[in-house]
Amino acid sequence: VSERLWLEARPLPGIPELTEGADLAGAIVAAAADASESLSREQVLVVAQKAVSKVEGRLRSLHDVEPSPEASKLASELEKDPRLVQLALEESTEVVRAQRGVLITRTRHGHVCANAGIDRSNVPGEDVVSLLPEDPDRSARRLRAALKRQLGDAPPAVVVSDSFGRAWRLGQVEVAIGCAGLEPLDDRRGQLDAVGRELTVTVEAVADAAASAAGLVRDKEGREAVVVVRGLERHVTESDGPGAGALVRPEAEDLFR
Amino acid sequence: VSERLWLEARPLPGIPELTEGADLAGAIVAAAADASESLSREQVLVVAQKAVSKVEGRLRSLHDVEPSPEASKLASELEKDPRLVQLALEESTEVVRAQRGVLITRTRHGHVCANAGIDRSNVPGEDVVSLLPEDPDRSARRLRAALKRQLGDAPPAVVVSDSFGRAWRLGQVEVAIGCAGLEPLDDRRGQLDAVGRELTVTVEAVADAAASAAGLVRDKEGREAVVVVRGLERHVTESDGPGAGALVRPEAEDLFR
Repeated sequence: VSERLWLEARPLPGIPELTEGADLAGAIVAAAADASESLSREQVLVVAQKAVSKVEGRLRSLHDVEPSPEASKLASELEKDPRLVQLALEESTEVVRAQRGVLITRTRHGHVCANAGIDRSNVPGEDVVSLLPEDPDRSARRLRAALKRQLGDAPPAVVVSDSFGRAWRLGQVEVAIGCAGLEPLDDRRGQLDAVGRELTVTVEAVADAAASAAGLVRDKEGREAVVVVRGLERHVTESDGPGAGALVRPEAEDLFR
Repeated sequence: VSERLWLEARPLPGIPELTEGADLAGAIVAAAADASESLSREQVLVVAQKAVSKVEGRLRSLHDVEPSPEASKLASELEKDPRLVQLALEESTEVVRAQRGVLITRTRHGHVCANAGIDRSNVPGEDVVSLLPEDPDRSARRLRAALKRQLGDAPPAVVVSDSFGRAWRLGQVEVAIGCAGLEPLDDRRGQLDAVGRELTVTVEAVADAAASAAGLVRDKEGREAVVVVRGLERHVTESDGPGAGALVRPEAEDLFR
């Protein structure tokens, strides 16, 4: 009988409002100390994309954006702000759907989502929007490395998460757009089920599920940059691993372009 | 400052192997008593689809299935068992994609998934497969009603979950295909974010995220029918509510048929 599993998720209180160049790792270590939370490889820190984008200076004022004719045309069809559409196109390699007021693109990282992940909520300043980090897996690796420097040898794993819609389901869930030190996928193909038959298509998207669990406890008013998830130590790795890029279905296997 | 949120998920040990007509509520109540787990409206029970299907007699022997010419043709193109394809077509209202060895359909309940949710793992008997429950929201309501009869006034909420793939992401996560007593969606549109701006597209798929969290602790060898999730009491309702049907994007809004 395998060890019984468990999962716990709690937001980390006390992360201040973040601005470009802020020491996110330092803020996390300080907040954890204040909360008597001992950070180690027992935890996965699920960090909101917006916090990472703010620290990395990935905010843009729409006042500075000049929409192209293509963006203006698309914006008019979708009844969207042409400057937002311009930014979304700049951040994307492909428009997947542009219909019924919805713009779904494939970002440079390969993630398929609305408006290339650009949004306005929880961003200070009139007409300021946040873009996704330039490379969220790199962001996760850098944060984990900075945590390791400040904490010593066994830093927690890091997931950078954003809320995505789904093709056929209403509502959003958080998914992993960046990941370091956590297996993004738990591949159980080849193992046997309870009746001794080989499990066929059981590859669990661990990092996405961890992000979704974190989303359930994250204050949507946006003050909580970090959720601490415990109970996933069996998926935590010493190396940073393949990152959330491994969660992107290759374009050649995409049946819904 | 709102109350700090938290989430916990643990499998409920001691649910025996289930067969058609078994008293699932009774098995849950007995297992909870053995585990000193006091069931109340503080919990959400995330019950594996397969457990519900077994109790409801939704197993089929492929030996008894006669594939139609349409199923045989599709199966040959996809290199699948024609009897499995036959069952998938019977359970579906629409073939969404049939390409590259993948059959994605819309089930009678509206869920879009591979093979209409039919699979072979953790099902006893040669060539026996499990179908999704006929009406997983009804299954959830019935189980909650039975728990209420056995427990008294304040039963836990019930989610029936299955592992689904995603259009653009690798790996599977558990999602809610049935739900009773839990808000499936938490609609925060109209609320203000931390900088006083209206949250625009924040509708969280609570029941799906709860299912995904449960999936992280469920023993994939299939012996664990029930995961107890705590910390979602603010989403638990006295009435059964709209069910997981509310998570299905209406066909008229589906951009990926």
